[in-house]
Amino acid sequence: MPLRSDWSDSQCPLARGLEVLGDPWSLLVLREVFFGQARFDDIKASTGIADSVLSKRLSALTAQGLLARSPYDDQSGRTRHEYVLTPKGEGTLPILNAMIQFAEEYLGAPSDAAHMQIIHSPCGRRTTSADRCDACREELTADTTTWVSFARPGGPVQLAGSR
Amino acid sequence: MPLRSDWSDSQCPLARGLEVLGDPWSLLVLREVFFGQARFDDIKASTGIADSVLSKRLSALTAQGLLARSPYDDQSGRTRHEYVLTPKGEGTLPILNAMIQFAEEYLGAPSDAAHMQIIHSPCGRRTTSADRCDACREELTADTTTWVSFARPGGPVQLAGSR
Repeated sequence: MPLRSDWSDSQCPLARGLEVLGDPWSLLVLREVFFGQARFDDIKASTGIADSVLSKRLSALTAQGLLARSPYDDQSGRTRHEYVLTPKGEGTLPILNAMIQFAEEYLGAPSDAAHMQIIHSPCGRRTTSADRCDACREELTADTTTWVSFARPGGPVQLAGSR
Repeated sequence: MPLRSDWSDSQCPLARGLEVLGDPWSLLVLREVFFGQARFDDIKASTGIADSVLSKRLSALTAQGLLARSPYDDQSGRTRHEYVLTPKGEGTLPILNAMIQFAEEYLGAPSDAAHMQIIHSPCGRRTTSADRCDACREELTADTTTWVSFARPGGPVQLAGSR
């Protein structure tokens, strides 16, 4: 964790937000859950995150109310948990979208495939806003957003929303 | 710095963005520059950041092309530098705005004053989007955005943009 005081009670909402989302791994874990990866091993495989870091991040995101744990039976009959977004967790979508749009506009890419587009699913148009469709102006939610990652196998992904 | 590999050449633009902006202090420093604080001592006073951390963050943000250094003479006749946003640095505004809107909507506040509103300056309306005016739908830039922080002395602040 960063060498700094706790910002949960900061007078500034930006600092309070960073207390929850200021760790870069947290946003990558949320990216995977929006992509529909709900299970520890799948999130680990997609991010390359170490087991111990992933465990801590999932626990923190759950404790902060951004993710909820949902039980499932694995093939050996053991009960394990998958992670789903809460409405609060889904509320982070504009932050992730804004970071993607910033990187697409201002940072170089290592290959022609290393890009993402944000599509408003109902009208099929690409948007450059973090939280609105440029074309029809509807608010973006996970249910109405598709991420097109050209570097990721499987084609466009309709995002997983809160349950 | 975080214990992880360099994400500058990641296939994912979100990870590339986090390589630049994944440190929470960086976003607080950018907040201060948007608020018009251009000098080391003023940024330090507003954030409580340690000298060594602030030096590193300002150097990194300058090296990444988000801030530019501009010389000025201090009262003793010595040349010092203030920090101004570049267009790339100003491009982070939707990320900061999205974090503020998330915190305002989903996180508790320690006092009635611990809030910020984002105002589209030309029409004077509050917006809930990170990058558009809800009312007139114009894109938000630093030149057209006012942050109203109720906890901060001095009233609403028209943001400082890139020069």
